[in-house]
Amino acid sequence: MKIGIVGATGYGGAELLRILHTHPYAEDCILYSSSEDGLPYWESFPHVNKIIDKTLQPIDVEKMAEEVDFVFLATPPGVSSELTPQFAERQVPVVDLSGDLRMKEPTVYEKWYKRKAAPQQIISEAVYGLSELNAKAIKDASCIANPGCFPTAAILGLAPLVKNRAIKEPSVIIDAKTGVSGAGRKASSATHFSETNENFKIYSVHEHKHTPEIEQMLSSLNPSFERVTFTSHLVPMTRGIMATIYADLAGNYNSSQLHELYKEFYQDSYFVRIRDIGNYPSTKEVYGSNYCDIAVAADERTGRVTIVSVIDNLVKGAAGQAVQNFNLMNGWPEETGLLFSPIYP
Amino acid sequence: MKIGIVGATGYGGAELLRILHTHPYAEDCILYSSSEDGLPYWESFPHVNKIIDKTLQPIDVEKMAEEVDFVFLATPPGVSSELTPQFAERQVPVVDLSGDLRMKEPTVYEKWYKRKAAPQQIISEAVYGLSELNAKAIKDASCIANPGCFPTAAILGLAPLVKNRAIKEPSVIIDAKTGVSGAGRKASSATHFSETNENFKIYSVHEHKHTPEIEQMLSSLNPSFERVTFTSHLVPMTRGIMATIYADLAGNYNSSQLHELYKEFYQDSYFVRIRDIGNYPSTKEVYGSNYCDIAVAADERTGRVTIVSVIDNLVKGAAGQAVQNFNLMNGWPEETGLLFSPIYP
Amino acid sequence: MKIGIVGATGYGGAELLRILHTHPYAEDCILYSSSEDGLPYWESFPHVNKIIDKTLQPIDVEKMAEEVDFVFLATPPGVSSELTPQFAERQVPVVDLSGDLRMKEPTVYEKWYKRKAAPQQIISEAVYGLSELNAKAIKDASCIANPGCFPTAAILGLAPLVKNRAIKEPSVIIDAKTGVSGAGRKASSATHFSETNENFKIYSVHEHKHTPEIEQMLSSLNPSFERVTFTSHLVPMTRGIMATIYADLAGNYNSSQLHELYKEFYQDSYFVRIRDIGNYPSTKEVYGSNYCDIAVAADERTGRVTIVSVIDNLVKGAAGQAVQNFNLMNGWPEETGLLFSPIYP
Amino acid sequence: MKIGIVGATGYGGAELLRILHTHPYAEDCILYSSSEDGLPYWESFPHVNKIIDKTLQPIDVEKMAEEVDFVFLATPPGVSSELTPQFAERQVPVVDLSGDLRMKEPTVYEKWYKRKAAPQQIISEAVYGLSELNAKAIKDASCIANPGCFPTAAILGLAPLVKNRAIKEPSVIIDAKTGVSGAGRKASSATHFSETNENFKIYSVHEHKHTPEIEQMLSSLNPSFERVTFTSHLVPMTRGIMATIYADLAGNYNSSQLHELYKEFYQDSYFVRIRDIGNYPSTKEVYGSNYCDIAVAADERTGRVTIVSVIDNLVKGAAGQAVQNFNLMNGWPEETGLLFSPIYP
Repeated sequence: MKIGIVGATGYGGAELLRILHTHPYAEDCILYSSSEDGLPYWESFPHVNKIIDKTLQPIDVEKMAEEVDFVFLATPPGVSSELTPQFAERQVPVVDLSGDLRMKEPTVYEKWYKRKAAPQQIISEAVYGLSELNAKAIKDASCIANPGCFPTAAILGLAPLVKNRAIKEPSVIIDAKTGVSGAGRKASSATHFSETNENFKIYSVHEHKHTPEIEQMLSSLNPSFERVTFTSHLVPMTRGIMATIYADLAGNYNSSQLHELYKEFYQDSYFVRIRDIGNYPSTKEVYGSNYCDIAVAADERTGRVTIVSVIDNLVKGAAGQAVQNFNLMNGWPEETGLLFSPIYP
Repeated sequence: MKIGIVGATGYGGAELLRILHTHPYAEDCILYSSSEDGLPYWESFPHVNKIIDKTLQPIDVEKMAEEVDFVFLATPPGVSSELTPQFAERQVPVVDLSGDLRMKEPTVYEKWYKRKAAPQQIISEAVYGLSELNAKAIKDASCIANPGCFPTAAILGLAPLVKNRAIKEPSVIIDAKTGVSGAGRKASSATHFSETNENFKIYSVHEHKHTPEIEQMLSSLNPSFERVTFTSHLVPMTRGIMATIYADLAGNYNSSQLHELYKEFYQDSYFVRIRDIGNYPSTKEVYGSNYCDIAVAADERTGRVTIVSVIDNLVKGAAGQAVQNFNLMNGWPEETGLLFSPIYP
Repeated sequence: MKIGIVGATGYGGAELLRILHTHPYAEDCILYSSSEDGLPYWESFPHVNKIIDKTLQPIDVEKMAEEVDFVFLATPPGVSSELTPQFAERQVPVVDLSGDLRMKEPTVYEKWYKRKAAPQQIISEAVYGLSELNAKAIKDASCIANPGCFPTAAILGLAPLVKNRAIKEPSVIIDAKTGVSGAGRKASSATHFSETNENFKIYSVHEHKHTPEIEQMLSSLNPSFERVTFTSHLVPMTRGIMATIYADLAGNYNSSQLHELYKEFYQDSYFVRIRDIGNYPSTKEVYGSNYCDIAVAADERTGRVTIVSVIDNLVKGAAGQAVQNFNLMNGWPEETGLLFSPIYP
Repeated sequence: MKIGIVGATGYGGAELLRILHTHPYAEDCILYSSSEDGLPYWESFPHVNKIIDKTLQPIDVEKMAEEVDFVFLATPPGVSSELTPQFAERQVPVVDLSGDLRMKEPTVYEKWYKRKAAPQQIISEAVYGLSELNAKAIKDASCIANPGCFPTAAILGLAPLVKNRAIKEPSVIIDAKTGVSGAGRKASSATHFSETNENFKIYSVHEHKHTPEIEQMLSSLNPSFERVTFTSHLVPMTRGIMATIYADLAGNYNSSQLHELYKEFYQDSYFVRIRDIGNYPSTKEVYGSNYCDIAVAADERTGRVTIVSVIDNLVKGAAGQAVQNFNLMNGWPEETGLLFSPIYP
């Protein structure tokens, strides 16, 4: 299968390429970039010198539709709103890693993203690509809105409780922490080494664009679910997300019962690993891999539950998830090409 | 004034020495260590070569009571339970940086610390040394239980709301993050560089010893206050604590009103800096200093408040706070010898 | 093929397992540990939870010789001196990742390592496993002394010049820098996070055990080669080695000529990437991969050459090199199972 | 004394302010910035909120000459070439932290800096401000060219050997490593966190602007001294420089003799600490302080000497050195206001 990657010079694009490089069904990847077309790819990313011998191509939908069988869009906000309908028209299946197609309500999108929503038709067609919860729809889809990194960690952490109505509404608080690669490749004072190293920051308090995405997906699991408080922090590390999630329990659950509930909920999910009781995951334990590790603990003293969910933001939170969707859309096992182990230490 | 530092080879001791080195009333410091007596201090800490020319002395309370006018204890758990009563007997004022004397209820101490509590008399005499809230009692005290690092950030962050009954009970969740120096100087696999770097960990879920310390102090501000959910995380950095705190508001407060309430509450507190609305502190902005920076924001969408409170765990969370108490006990302005600026970047 | 890994709970062992997990000819891995036998492997390394479902086995050469077709020893100093002869006796091929069998002169070993050398016979049988320079001997060997991490970077960086007598003797200075994982998994004050982070250290000045290994291999390329000055530094990062190498040029070489010489020397070496003139590699550009990236530059002003050579110390500097040797010994292409790209960022 | 700081929004300016904030003779600091005038200083650097309550002033030499008694220039390349002559005309003493006035030969400056040299007269007047070697001239100067960060570490490390003709010429190789703050405050892809963290880079091979500065100063100590090979590396940390220096010994020196020579050479230098034989400094041991720690070791096997020299690039390598010169120019002890200890860990 011939694959096109648009936006290959960003971190999401580079990670897609790392994964597809050893994917058994990725015959060839063609790389597209609006800003650096004509440049040999390894000049932008010297780590793939001698590995990826490609020149960046300009974006020309007509030509792409002839060249490739499948497209990944790893593009800045607003680009896929324009490109996706054109690929749809030409029957080229797409996984879009941006946030453009995730919100079903244009008004919600416009309120949180502060930009114009994508055309209604493409929004309607796009399937939210959180494979563990939406596999059936993904298999039939030709346009996937790949989930955001924080929503992936948060929704997978909360789904068993929300689906089973085990927590009170509204009580969910998500305290999320991310490595700096989540901010992308563009240099800025917020991600300048000397200002970020040996520093721990909080940002987007009460205003993070991923908030409505979490709420939309969780309320699809349980219509009475409404709102979360979501906060994001920047950790002086490159990769990794931890979501620490708090909620009031709706009954007298102890940690064992919650643990059982999670084990059962995810029994067929290849990439979710439920940790033993009292054993909490750290971000490095999923580094470079497509796993999401989750621990759950009841606090009988306060009647609350604490859930810990970790992913690699560039893999399960972006490119790995995208390939998992690519697999499902093509009828292959979801783990195809994603069997590599975390890299540790 | 002649000062004794017991446990000078730990990080708390070293930081005390750094601060007292330029304190105008610290005439001389004598350094004591049970494990390394006889060793020149700079062999343990080469960074003070040519600055601190002292040999570590064995611990002998009788002799110390003659040599020094004031004692700081920066010792492992259980040591001050034994030493403090002996100093009290000899009228030597003490600031104890350990957790031994913080809990007023021996049963609570024993439940959370899993060791025998200190003698009742010394517990009763010890004053909890959070200077911003307890200055009056500290001025008259001869034995101070210096606060824990997490409780300092958390209590200062919550006090204005608890005191003013502006939040519902029980709704407080404290998601705390600390640099690795909080784990002390002893090497362990949990603080091994290769396992800690580029990693974000959670630990002591629902079981952290600092939980009852926070509850005790907050319920002294408002007797109806009862319980918090407290979680601690390890950040791949050396210094700094951020406590992100969530609570349900008891009324229709907006961010401006909360900001006013904090400004007023801390108007006379030299070391608390209330950040402007929408401006959140990061840990590096207090690095090496005695400041506690706090931001507060109402989320009208969820009816909750988010509070962000940052300190340097070794300064305001340990040695700087100890010197602030030392100042108050001696009738000097609380900021004496603590005027140095944060070091940035 | 059934493979035994001895010392699987160290970083070298874990990295072997990560690589062999997707190696096409590694049918099964059996894990041995003297200190933790009986323990499920993922309890020691939670990152392979659900991936490696093995229990650590005790070391019993007799039994191992029946169970496995090939052995990797990733053991502390002194262990392979004892184990390797026993495997040799039973015709089990071995790659030894320790330093026990690297030095051909027992007196040299004993002087630098300050411990007893291995038996003469096994030293004689062991082939130095730097695949790029010794492939022929490796193919016929049944016992491989896998190179040290620093020697790998240094020797690959110097070989073209030494072989072509392009530098004066003695003028070689190797200034090497390593990530902290090179110090192994055991916690120590030297690798304690708070003492290592935001710190740059030098160690083993003029005394590093890898010095004679570099000299031995280079003098095998050119008998007139004698001595190097070698210095090692600890970088606050987990993985990666850079060797910055200086030498006086023996003729009027310019950068172009040197670049040509390197391109030619390594034209058939899959894992050596010679960088373009003026383009220098950084350690992250080989992170997690088996590549060695090299740049070379003449300084016409001083008549010297500067060579920069980077590897991932746990891959090309240990486990990846070991698998490359394993491939050669079995007649497979050297890159088998090692095609994964560096992970960046 | 009233002090003007031009370029206060860079790291050098911020560090000057941190130091002068507790300097006994710095009555007041006025802050100037061409790009951010009108802005309250703490908006640019929130860490000095409530500490420095100043608004940035536009640069107007006439007005400054009336307002201040002394000026520090912490400005980008080219600015002091223009400003310094104007201050000289008005008899305002200046310490210039940029590289504009360091090179005595305009052609050398223009070759390495690739820009126009400053006017000859101001170059002639400017005294090179490495206090340990030039104190006498500094005391009489009214215009100081403050040394570069790398030259400070390198020259202090080499001066005793060069002055005593203990090394052969040309044999000096300086392998230097710096924290990222040396690159300044402006965000760039080279200092982007995700590209710099967990990475070790080399840059400016054979082309670093600090090379001729080192050569100029060392040849002033010994006219037969000519050339050095100088290489710079970027360490994933914020502060600190280590220069590892190699040279061929001109005689049969052992480490003891070299150690004596260094002790004697620096016996009156407050801020140079010669480490005991076999005890090597790391960068964190001078973090935040004005010390330069040096170790020296002979390698009898190769006839070479290895010197290790560490500083904090923003203190002894910039702002601290500038204040040391300010002290000397005003007739105060050089250590005035610089007595603070390194901050560790």
